[in-house]
Amino acid sequence: MAVKPSIPKGTRDFNPQEVSRRHYIMNVLRTAFEGYGFQPIETPSFENIETLTGKYGEEGDRLIFKILKSGDFLAKLPQEIRNSDSPNKWALEIADKALRYDLTVPFARFVVQHRNELAFPFKRYQMQPVWRADRPQKGRFREFWQCDADVVGSDSLWQEVEFVQLYDRAFTQLGLNVTIHLNNRKVLAGIAEVIGASDKLVDFTVALDKLDKIGAEKVVAEMVERGIPEEGTQKVLPLLSMDDSNEAVLDFLTDFLKDSEMGMKGLEELRFVLDKVDALGLKTASIKVDLTLARGLDYYTGAILEVKANDVQLGSIGGGGRYDDLTGIFGLKDLSGMGVSFGLDRIYLCLEELNLFPDSSESKPSILFFNMGEAEMLTSQKWATALREKGIAAECYPDNTKFKKQFDYADKKGFAHVAIIGESEMNDGIAKVKDQSTGEQEALTLDQLIQLLSK
Amino acid sequence: MAVKPSIPKGTRDFNPQEVSRRHYIMNVLRTAFEGYGFQPIETPSFENIETLTGKYGEEGDRLIFKILKSGDFLAKLPQEIRNSDSPNKWALEIADKALRYDLTVPFARFVVQHRNELAFPFKRYQMQPVWRADRPQKGRFREFWQCDADVVGSDSLWQEVEFVQLYDRAFTQLGLNVTIHLNNRKVLAGIAEVIGASDKLVDFTVALDKLDKIGAEKVVAEMVERGIPEEGTQKVLPLLSMDDSNEAVLDFLTDFLKDSEMGMKGLEELRFVLDKVDALGLKTASIKVDLTLARGLDYYTGAILEVKANDVQLGSIGGGGRYDDLTGIFGLKDLSGMGVSFGLDRIYLCLEELNLFPDSSESKPSILFFNMGEAEMLTSQKWATALREKGIAAECYPDNTKFKKQFDYADKKGFAHVAIIGESEMNDGIAKVKDQSTGEQEALTLDQLIQLLSK
Repeated sequence: MAVKPSIPKGTRDFNPQEVSRRHYIMNVLRTAFEGYGFQPIETPSFENIETLTGKYGEEGDRLIFKILKSGDFLAKLPQEIRNSDSPNKWALEIADKALRYDLTVPFARFVVQHRNELAFPFKRYQMQPVWRADRPQKGRFREFWQCDADVVGSDSLWQEVEFVQLYDRAFTQLGLNVTIHLNNRKVLAGIAEVIGASDKLVDFTVALDKLDKIGAEKVVAEMVERGIPEEGTQKVLPLLSMDDSNEAVLDFLTDFLKDSEMGMKGLEELRFVLDKVDALGLKTASIKVDLTLARGLDYYTGAILEVKANDVQLGSIGGGGRYDDLTGIFGLKDLSGMGVSFGLDRIYLCLEELNLFPDSSESKPSILFFNMGEAEMLTSQKWATALREKGIAAECYPDNTKFKKQFDYADKKGFAHVAIIGESEMNDGIAKVKDQSTGEQEALTLDQLIQLLSK
Repeated sequence: MAVKPSIPKGTRDFNPQEVSRRHYIMNVLRTAFEGYGFQPIETPSFENIETLTGKYGEEGDRLIFKILKSGDFLAKLPQEIRNSDSPNKWALEIADKALRYDLTVPFARFVVQHRNELAFPFKRYQMQPVWRADRPQKGRFREFWQCDADVVGSDSLWQEVEFVQLYDRAFTQLGLNVTIHLNNRKVLAGIAEVIGASDKLVDFTVALDKLDKIGAEKVVAEMVERGIPEEGTQKVLPLLSMDDSNEAVLDFLTDFLKDSEMGMKGLEELRFVLDKVDALGLKTASIKVDLTLARGLDYYTGAILEVKANDVQLGSIGGGGRYDDLTGIFGLKDLSGMGVSFGLDRIYLCLEELNLFPDSSESKPSILFFNMGEAEMLTSQKWATALREKGIAAECYPDNTKFKKQFDYADKKGFAHVAIIGESEMNDGIAKVKDQSTGEQEALTLDQLIQLLSK
C-alpha cells in the first residue's frame, strides 16, 4: 500500500527557508501597501464556475482548474451530455466550482458583491495563490502567488503617481535596483493614428514589442508586412532609433502627436505622471518612458507600467496599468481604476541571485539545549522557558541520546548556539554555551545567556 | 451577460478587518511556534488524488474535493467506466488531483519525500487552508484554515510537556483563558481492560464521551447496552462521578489500574507530563485530566489533548495527541511523533466575542490628506511621502472634489486624522489637522505632525 510520494507537476513544497523568505517579501509588500492606504482582502480559493469562465478567453477557460461536483454528479446528467464526447460540455455539467485563475476577476466580483460596505475609491491589496493548468516550465508554475494592489472608483492621475512611488518604496526596501517602464495606451493609439494604422493598433504594438530583439529596421519591415502603410512606418523610424532621456522622447512626441487628440491626451497624462514623480523624488528606482511596452493592451486604457530588475536578466517582476471598466462583467458599469502586481516568485529569484535576503528573514532557531538526563533536562527546560519569555527562540533536544547525535542535529538545523547543562552545571547554576560559528565555549548563568542572545 | 455575483456555499470573503485580525492571530501562533523551534513548511493546495484517497475513511473520500483532469478527460476513458453509473469509479478516472483535506497527510507525504534533507526529530508548523465538501453550517466551512505543529522522529514525553506549554504561551499571548484537557489512550485502554471491555474500547469511549451531556448513570446504562459487562461498568462509576483535582484522579487510577500493564504505562505518562508542567509552571492556562476525552482515538496512541476557552461556549479551539506511525502509508515505518492543532476560525470567534483583538491588529490608515487642487495636492503628497519614511501610513484623496465627499470617505474608512493643506496652508508651510475622534483641529508643521503621529 506504500505509495511513492510525489506532488502534482507545476506545484511546489516550500521548506522552512523558502517559507520564511517568501514571508519576508510579503511582509515588505504588506508594509508598502498599507503605507499608501491599501487594505487587505482575501477571497475563496474556488469560485462558482460561471464567475470565472468566459473571462479569460477560450485559452483561459481551458487553463482553469475545475472542481468536480460533490455527490452523484452523474445522476442528473442530461442524456445528451452523457452521449457527448466534448470534455467542455461535460465539464460545465459535472463541475460547479473552479480554482481562482487570477486575483482580478475575484476582486471585481468582491467589489460588486460588497459595494455597499466599501468606501470608494476602494484601495485593496491581495496576496494569494492562483492556479493555471499551463504547461509547467522553469519559473512557470501551476500554483503560484499574485500580490496585487488596485484602486477603483477614481480616474485621478495621482494614482499613477502613487503606484510608481509604491514600486520604488517596496523595491528600495527589498534592496533591489529596478527600472519602472512607463507607457500610455493613448500615446500608442495616437502614434498609430498618425502613421495611418489606427485599425492596426495590435499589429503595430506586436511589431513594436520586438524592437529590443530585432532592431528598428526589422520592426518597420514587420509593420509593413502586417499591412501598415510604408509611409507611416518611415515616420516612426526616428522614434524607434532614439534611446534618449524621457524629456527627449516627450519632446519628440509633442510634435509627432500634435494632430492626434487621443495622442495628445496620452502625452499629457505621461507628462503629469513624470512631472509629479520627479517633484516627489524616487529613492532608488529609475523611471523610463518605454513606447514598446504594450502588455495588457486589450485591457489597459491609460498608463501601462512594467518593472524590471537592473541586475538580473529575468524579464518583468511587476506590472500594471489603468483600466476603465473592472466590474462591468458583473453588472456594475464604469468603475475605472488602476492596479499593479508584484511577481513574488521572480522577486524571490532576484533576491536569491543577488544575495539580498537579510539574515533576519530566516527563521533560524537561536539555541539548542542538549538532553543530559531527566533532572538536567528539567533545568534546561526552565532556562528555555525563561529565554522564550524574553522573545528568544529556544529548543530542547527531546531524547537523552549520544552527544554526536545531538550535535549533528544542531548542525543540520543551523542553531547559532548550543547549551549543555549536565549534572555539575545544574548544581552550579550555569550552562556551557558553545557558539556554533566560532566554536568558542563559555560557562554562563541564565542572566548572562539572556544578555548574550538578546544582542 | 451580468452574472449576479456570489461565492460557493461554505466559503468566505474576508474584508480588511477580518484579514488583519486573522493575520494577528497567525502572527501570535507563528511567534509561539518558532519560540519552540518549530519551522514553517507549506505544501501545494492540491495533491495527486492517490495521495489523499483512502486516508480518511469512506466518508472522508466522499468529502475530498476532486479536480477534473485538464485536457480531454473523456478521450482515454475505458468503455467500462463510460457505461458505469458510479460517480466514484468515474471520479478516479476523470480527476487526477484533489484539494488538501487536512495538513497531516500532506505533512506525512512531505516528510517521506524530503526525508534526506530534514533534521530529525523534525519540528514543523504549517498554517494553510484545507477544503472539505461537508454540509456547511454555523462555524463549519468548506474552506477553512488549520494551524498545526508536529514533531516527528522521537517518542520523548518532553514533547507532550512542550505542547502543553506552547498552548499556554499562545493563548496567554492572545489574552484568552483556556483549560487544556489531557488524557491518555493507554489509560483508557487500561480502564477498558480492568472492566472487561478490552475488545470494546470504542464503545466504551463513545459512551464515556457523553458524560457531560447525560450524566454518570446514563453513561453506565449505555455501556451495558453496548455489551460491556455490568459488573465492570459498576467499577467505573466512582471514576465518572469524581470531578476532582488531577491528583485525586491520578490517585484513584493508581489503584484502579494496578493490574493493567498498559494502564500503568499510560498513568506514568500522564504523571510525567503533569509533574513537569507543574515544575515549569503555566502562565495562564489550567490543565485538567479529562478521562472522557477520546478524540482521534483510532489515531492517537498516547497523550490526547484538547483546549477549551473558559469564557466562551464554543467547544474545542485546539487539540492533538501522540501517534505512532505517521508515515507508514507512504512507506516510511515507525516514525512516531506528536502534533497539535489550533482552530483559527474558532479562536477568532472567541477573541471577537470577548473583545480581545488589540487595536494594533487593525490595519487602519492613520491620516488622510484632502485634495484641494493640483499644487496643494503635490504639497500633501510630499508630506505623505515624508510620513511614510517614518513608518506612518498616509493616504491622499485622489480627486479634487467636494469636502463632504472627502469627509465621508475619511469616516467610512476610519482614519484617525485628516489633514487639509489649502492654498494658504501651503504658503505657510502648515496643515490643518483634525483628530477624527475628538473633532479637535490644529495647525501643524510637518515636523509637528510627524511627532503627533509617531506617538
